Amino acid sequence: MAYDELVKRCIDLCQQCETACLTCADACLNEKDIDMLRDCIKTDLECAEICGVTARILALNGDFQKDIVRLCQQLCEACAEECEKHAGHGMEHCEACAKACRACAEACKKLVA
Amino acid sequence: MAYDELVKRCIDLCQQCETACLTCADACLNEKDIDMLRDCIKTDLECAEICGVTARILALNGDFQKDIVRLCQQLCEACAEECEKHAGHGMEHCEACAKACRACAEACKKLVA
Amino acid sequence: MAYDELVKRCIDLCQQCETACLTCADACLNEKDIDMLRDCIKTDLECAEICGVTARILALNGDFQKDIVRLCQQLCEACAEECEKHAGHGMEHCEACAKACRACAEACKKLVA
Amino acid sequence: MAYDELVKRCIDLCQQCETACLTCADACLNEKDIDMLRDCIKTDLECAEICGVTARILALNGDFQKDIVRLCQQLCEACAEECEKHAGHGMEHCEACAKACRACAEACKKLVA
Repeated sequence: MAYDELVKRCIDLCQQCETACLTCADACLNEKDIDMLRDCIKTDLECAEICGVTARILALNGDFQKDIVRLCQQLCEACAEECEKHAGHGMEHCEACAKACRACAEACKKLVA
Repeated sequence: MAYDELVKRCIDLCQQCETACLTCADACLNEKDIDMLRDCIKTDLECAEICGVTARILALNGDFQKDIVRLCQQLCEACAEECEKHAGHGMEHCEACAKACRACAEACKKLVA
Repeated sequence: MAYDELVKRCIDLCQQCETACLTCADACLNEKDIDMLRDCIKTDLECAEICGVTARILALNGDFQKDIVRLCQQLCEACAEECEKHAGHGMEHCEACAKACRACAEACKKLVA
Repeated sequence: MAYDELVKRCIDLCQQCETACLTCADACLNEKDIDMLRDCIKTDLECAEICGVTARILALNGDFQKDIVRLCQQLCEACAEECEKHAGHGMEHCEACAKACRACAEACKKLVA
């Protein structure tokens, strides 16, 4: 894929991941067993922040885009790991979030390759 | 469409509009005739801010979602009007941005109907 | 105060409120009795989003600044009310957040008067 | 200074820098000689994005705070350099922005030391 196409794809997946993280955080806040989801909510919020700013810096074609994309990859992997802990326990929002994080991390990785 | 589906669609279109606005602002900054694009850049930036926050508030299922969606519709209409002034003058980024703004405004309108 | 001064003050208080809300959300996630703080975390996040975007729209001198400032005032009042429920129960972060919300709401009110 | 104090100071200076960058971008869009300010506007916008997200990640006490603070320092230094080119030519907003960027970069540097 051309760089331009990789950028478009990365923006899309960052935005989908941002949404999945915030949706997951909100759903966690409504779960009966919120106690075990504290780290998940926190990681969701941090990941959503970085995914959002990465999409915007890419759209602005910023000079530091590769640096923020590299950081975004790390955050998405960390958030995926956390969400995967709960994905098998009936937490569909965590499963969806983990998937979105993995897809975003992959797109980030390809962009800076 | 069910409310949930309308929300998903609105989030998508807000994010696409945010990206189109920032892409347009960056492209305007590279146009030879930047002098006539001052208002366009400014409106792009304001619209991008509101589209971004609207998508996030919807994902968080915030209590004030209808209020921000209503404001987002207004911003998108104003930005579309500005971009449409330049769309016919070889400014493809303005044409793309105007389209994204119109689509987002429509989704916002449906959500609060 | 001149409008310019009111804007500066409003930006400052929006940013302080954004920080207080996120600090409160993070602290709530670490509280033993997280169960009663669900609404507080959620309101904190929504309020932080709107305070942040309000400060940015004011700094950009956006055309819709009064509309977002009006919405920000409402969010801050709602968040203050929620935080005040917990302020007297040893939740210092809620007390600090409620104060920051009240100060921000007041600055917003003066700006659009 | 204790780490907590350095964090508070860094959040403050990130937010002041975000505001100075957006104020500078808006002022540049109103300058007669906008042609020579294209890079300045662009750098302002990128720096504002990173300063904003850095303040939020610090307030959330995020796990990747040091990484984003390091990146913020670089952005602020780059933006200060760009703004300093225009600071001596009657562009007071560039002078103010360069100062805010230098102060923020310094606070970021201390935090990750």
